[in-house]
Amino acid sequence: MKDMLGREELITVDKALEILEKHIYFRKSAEIKLAIENSYGMIVSKDIFSPENLPEFNRSTVDGFAVNSADTFGATDNLPSYLVLKAEILMGEEPDFKVDKGEVAKIATGGMLPQGTDSVVMLEHTQLIDEKMIEVVKPVAPGENVIQAGEDAKKGEFLLESGRRLRPQDIGALAGLGITNVWVYEKPKVSIISTGDEIIPANKPIKPGYVRDINSYVLSGLILNAGGIPVKKGIFSDEYDILKDVVEESLSNSDMVLITGGSSVGTKDMTARIINDAGKPGVLFHGVSLKPGKPLICGIVNNKVIWGLPGHPAAVSVCFKIFIEPVLKTLSGLKEDRLEPYKKTVTAKIDKNISSSPGREEHIAVYLEERNGELWATPIFAKSGLITTLIKADGTALIPLKKLGVKEGETVEVRLF
Amino acid sequence: MKDMLGREELITVDKALEILEKHIYFRKSAEIKLAIENSYGMIVSKDIFSPENLPEFNRSTVDGFAVNSADTFGATDNLPSYLVLKAEILMGEEPDFKVDKGEVAKIATGGMLPQGTDSVVMLEHTQLIDEKMIEVVKPVAPGENVIQAGEDAKKGEFLLESGRRLRPQDIGALAGLGITNVWVYEKPKVSIISTGDEIIPANKPIKPGYVRDINSYVLSGLILNAGGIPVKKGIFSDEYDILKDVVEESLSNSDMVLITGGSSVGTKDMTARIINDAGKPGVLFHGVSLKPGKPLICGIVNNKVIWGLPGHPAAVSVCFKIFIEPVLKTLSGLKEDRLEPYKKTVTAKIDKNISSSPGREEHIAVYLEERNGELWATPIFAKSGLITTLIKADGTALIPLKKLGVKEGETVEVRLF
Repeated sequence: MKDMLGREELITVDKALEILEKHIYFRKSAEIKLAIENSYGMIVSKDIFSPENLPEFNRSTVDGFAVNSADTFGATDNLPSYLVLKAEILMGEEPDFKVDKGEVAKIATGGMLPQGTDSVVMLEHTQLIDEKMIEVVKPVAPGENVIQAGEDAKKGEFLLESGRRLRPQDIGALAGLGITNVWVYEKPKVSIISTGDEIIPANKPIKPGYVRDINSYVLSGLILNAGGIPVKKGIFSDEYDILKDVVEESLSNSDMVLITGGSSVGTKDMTARIINDAGKPGVLFHGVSLKPGKPLICGIVNNKVIWGLPGHPAAVSVCFKIFIEPVLKTLSGLKEDRLEPYKKTVTAKIDKNISSSPGREEHIAVYLEERNGELWATPIFAKSGLITTLIKADGTALIPLKKLGVKEGETVEVRLF
Repeated sequence: MKDMLGREELITVDKALEILEKHIYFRKSAEIKLAIENSYGMIVSKDIFSPENLPEFNRSTVDGFAVNSADTFGATDNLPSYLVLKAEILMGEEPDFKVDKGEVAKIATGGMLPQGTDSVVMLEHTQLIDEKMIEVVKPVAPGENVIQAGEDAKKGEFLLESGRRLRPQDIGALAGLGITNVWVYEKPKVSIISTGDEIIPANKPIKPGYVRDINSYVLSGLILNAGGIPVKKGIFSDEYDILKDVVEESLSNSDMVLITGGSSVGTKDMTARIINDAGKPGVLFHGVSLKPGKPLICGIVNNKVIWGLPGHPAAVSVCFKIFIEPVLKTLSGLKEDRLEPYKKTVTAKIDKNISSSPGREEHIAVYLEERNGELWATPIFAKSGLITTLIKADGTALIPLKKLGVKEGETVEVRLF
């Protein structure tokens, strides 16, 4: 809706997210099979099950002596159990002997327990008496320091859910189970279209009235960090036909489209018109009660999300984190991460009073600092167009919709840059 | 020092870190010049200063009307200021007219203020009366909604310190200042040598007594995440001459060397011997009061750090996070990150009593879960050799050296995987 001056009425962030969620038919990226060494950080696209029993045999988890646990009951420093050292199990070898009552076999971590043993006494809890005899100064329970055959994973056992991002430890576990290839989602491609007659490439000398293209660099990095592939389309003039062509081409060969830099009202209206003309349903919302980030436009064309972003880099970052990153993660196939909020935000005390307009969610650029073990957030009071603010800020502190501001010493949530 | 059974006496984690710090002469990686679009996440190697004044002209930060602020003093909804719309400043153009008292010029975000104006009234605080006249319903202060020439950055002004990791926002700022190439450190190369006669490649069917190589996959991912380049050297037999050759070759063409998998006492002693034989000063410490991770060996040869890691993947992860990652970050040129502890750890309540040995730092694998807005850590009581534990754990909870354990409901620090 527009008022008589052609200005858009604003909706809240929550309402905008609600509209977005209702209208999106997420099309996940294609699946590809990758060698595990190339799959760090990729998203699993098919549930993974164990292809075998692991281990296939009872395995020691420590260096020590394989024993029948009953032979160690009651052993102490003062009253050790004396046991006969029958043999040493060499690494990588299957023991071909049996350990009888009163006997032990020297075993290393990973070694296969010989017949007649059910546990392993750690080296630390033994003393070597001579070449044929040891004393055990601490008892072991049956199964202690042993992984039973099949205990780690049973053949067909569920291991990893599709939608999970692969961590180093996960890939190690897959290697251990003999899984050397995984199905993962291809990273979604995100087109970045820079618009504005005033925008010049970063390598050009600046002329009065012009600003360099900043947003395509900020967005490329944010897309990379969120697990997407940025595709810079270039800088385009604010002309309907030119922009419409590049938007349609981008919609056809990428998974999401970002239009950035058109900060004049005329450009914003043109962006909205192009989104509406490109296909159905077109613009979902235009203008959000958010500072910075108010002029955000969101549309859907042929099931692909297309965004018209504000011109200010600080606003671009805020809009990306609130709106675009969640969509990008869904496109990438990532299931919700329980720990996401803990990873991306910290709580801190604000060190100045900040006023805020009611009915508007505000994100204040802050510098973070530890003082006497407490984290404090100092607002960077700079005009939103200042480029160097980007360098100084550690993140943005949130002043929620319903608050009229925050008082010095109040706790705020800070989303890290 | 060894006791009579050939076992190493253990030192504390803090003492080990202290020894490491004293002995290390960090050789940073070579510097390379990169285009900014390829420098996301790289570490700046030379301080960066602004090459120019930014902006070169007074620039509007909003869409609105450039005015002489005095013309708006006292303006309200009931008593607006009526001002004559003299012209519109087109984007990318330098205005060639002067705005007189009582006049305004329409201006878009980023536009250059014309002579005679000192501030910009936001579009929202105006009403268009007709094509030649607007009313202003809110006053502006001198300089409001304007970035003064040179206000963002002055020529020669310090921007970014060497040793900083480049974020998307930083690179955007560099682009805005016309800096399109940066000097950064090359990522340090870390050799991974897998040893152990029992270790087989992940793609091989498992035979009794053998385990697949897991650690080289876990370590590769951890090295990538910490900003290094993993160089897998392969799996080698526990033979002195073979290992010594690959260690010396690795020391000569990488920045750090990790030896993993030799979990038997014999292998560990051989690793220590090879480190001592490879050069001075050799082994710094051998055995740390840490669980898991006790058998860790650290040495320095020709100013390069070389590690003998325990065989268990869980121990490998803990040793990497505590000891190796800080060294790797220093090698990569990264200056200490004030916010590092906040990014990598969360606090949670432990949901079981855990006992711990005094004088030993323990790291317990935990699963994290939010319950009624609080984060709880559930210990994963699994034997350390279990591979699938790696998949289930979200991180490790710390039980510090001096504690005898933690009680249910007690707050612990959890280092995220």
